[in-house]
Amino acid sequence: MPRADETPNPLRLPTIASTTDVVLDATLRQRWRRSDLPAHALGQLEPLVLLLARVQNTEAQPFTQLRLHAPQLVVFAADHGLADEGVSAFPQNATLERVRQLLRGNTATNAMAGLQGFKLTVVDAGMATPIALEADEIPRVPLQLRKIGYATRNVVLSTAMSIPQAVAALHAGMDVVQHLPGNVLALGDVGVGSTACASLLFSRLCGVPLDKVLDAGEDAADTRQPHRLHKLLTAAYRHRKANAPLEVLAAMGGFEIAMMAGAMLQAAAERRVVLVDGYVSGAAALVARALSPAVGDYLVFCHRSPHPGHRLMLAHLNAQPLLDLGLHTGQGLGTLLAWPLLLAAQRLVAH
Amino acid sequence: MPRADETPNPLRLPTIASTTDVVLDATLRQRWRRSDLPAHALGQLEPLVLLLARVQNTEAQPFTQLRLHAPQLVVFAADHGLADEGVSAFPQNATLERVRQLLRGNTATNAMAGLQGFKLTVVDAGMATPIALEADEIPRVPLQLRKIGYATRNVVLSTAMSIPQAVAALHAGMDVVQHLPGNVLALGDVGVGSTACASLLFSRLCGVPLDKVLDAGEDAADTRQPHRLHKLLTAAYRHRKANAPLEVLAAMGGFEIAMMAGAMLQAAAERRVVLVDGYVSGAAALVARALSPAVGDYLVFCHRSPHPGHRLMLAHLNAQPLLDLGLHTGQGLGTLLAWPLLLAAQRLVAH
Repeated sequence: MPRADETPNPLRLPTIASTTDVVLDATLRQRWRRSDLPAHALGQLEPLVLLLARVQNTEAQPFTQLRLHAPQLVVFAADHGLADEGVSAFPQNATLERVRQLLRGNTATNAMAGLQGFKLTVVDAGMATPIALEADEIPRVPLQLRKIGYATRNVVLSTAMSIPQAVAALHAGMDVVQHLPGNVLALGDVGVGSTACASLLFSRLCGVPLDKVLDAGEDAADTRQPHRLHKLLTAAYRHRKANAPLEVLAAMGGFEIAMMAGAMLQAAAERRVVLVDGYVSGAAALVARALSPAVGDYLVFCHRSPHPGHRLMLAHLNAQPLLDLGLHTGQGLGTLLAWPLLLAAQRLVAH
Repeated sequence: MPRADETPNPLRLPTIASTTDVVLDATLRQRWRRSDLPAHALGQLEPLVLLLARVQNTEAQPFTQLRLHAPQLVVFAADHGLADEGVSAFPQNATLERVRQLLRGNTATNAMAGLQGFKLTVVDAGMATPIALEADEIPRVPLQLRKIGYATRNVVLSTAMSIPQAVAALHAGMDVVQHLPGNVLALGDVGVGSTACASLLFSRLCGVPLDKVLDAGEDAADTRQPHRLHKLLTAAYRHRKANAPLEVLAAMGGFEIAMMAGAMLQAAAERRVVLVDGYVSGAAALVARALSPAVGDYLVFCHRSPHPGHRLMLAHLNAQPLLDLGLHTGQGLGTLLAWPLLLAAQRLVAH
């Protein structure tokens, strides 16, 4: 019997080109070494400009100016069977409630998307329930139904999803992006239990022990912590043989995380800039990077979440996020708040 | 002979009302506890909204919505006699060069002020030289000549300025603000040697030993550090008897720092929101707070500078800055980059 990671599967990964270009870097650094400022005075804006310029530098269109247009925010919603184990502070129907608020245009994310000029799309990646709006209610935000299943299975008892489901979710994420305009893609997520799921993925994909990932830190008052650690250790032990990226995703992932990973891969293949929000989208970035390392060249990490594992995750992603505001909203809010810094970078290059 | 802090001096401080209002806070927290988000999910945006709302809540006009309009950036430029001791990495004429670039509209600050809709004003608070532009050159930015002197004196050898000069600088800062429109004031600074000056003020006003303030941290490669510490210790010892705020400012301050402090006091008295940039404007905030503690209610700290002492200074100011981008530009760039977060707060309250 072949090992699982040798099983042929129909996953089609788009081709992603590395953006590395030392000549471009040198040219930009020269241009960037402004007469009015000492070297590196612009701190993190400098690597941000280099990343954005590399993404927009193609053979057909060599980089001259940054052009960021028609930014999109896609929020993927899904439920996690793991929530049955009481690892989250919220009841599972919170996912549905938040999605309804998003569709009604009532959330902080809607307000910020409006302010920053992002078009918002909500995708049902696998919520536990059908989405029910009141009769006669027309959603104010486009909703795409891409449900892979009614929540993942409980990873303490079984794999979260089958390999074909994982592949279908990745493909769905790619497909969503293919039909969106613009060259900037921001990703958000909604889903009770997604944080625990992200911790499992991070721990396995980066070889970090779970107790380090969950290290309570300032959250020491959270009495749910020992219980959560126990459940996650049980799940990790059950899936101890999952090591290849697709296997890990199927064993311990979530539908929204798989779709976000697919969306990142497709966006990078189309040379879009990808804005990554917090801890859960960070886990999706780890999955995407494991499947296709070059995707990392396209990712802008926008916000350090207060989750204790996020600092460590960002270190593994070799990322310095633009903001550290203590948000724990999910739904892409961090990407929307970081967006003006990309506009600033665009203006500074043009100047 | 009376002690210096009992000497009558003609300093006129504007009356600043504390903005504390527990009823308003409770009302706002209620409104802010959004149905779509768990408590405190908006992290630092929550205290930001409270601060802004308190500032705009008056008896005549009780707070209903945030209204931020006609934001102003004032950059104060001055030179420091202390620069003669070789404490800075830059030659003193760098001050003049940067001011010329500002007036020509060539700097990152000009570009960002344009992008964010700030009106920029440059004030010569006490540069070592007259400002010379090329013949026929019309400055693209308004310049106010408020020169108190041609650079401060070298604090290793004497007081930086006389008490009347310190008072004149504070008054000039107040006067500049009185003639500006809008209800948002951002402050920036240019001046070779200002960082060393800020360290002296911080050390004395907060009782923090100089070696802690200058603690090299990641800057350990800076070979100028032992020399700098030696010079600053000498200066601090010479002025060991200066303890009252105005005395400290006169003994070890700078003209631009004094004017910034005056500007903060006046802005707070007029219930404007004050945006504080990095380490040097932070020192001005310490001076302003020492003169009139209520000014603290009006200050929004925008950026954590990479200067090793800034973390400690912010702790003493009980401040959590909005950004931490590693900028070391001065000139108010951090305030301009943080501005979209205030607009976000304004939108979130309105929503």
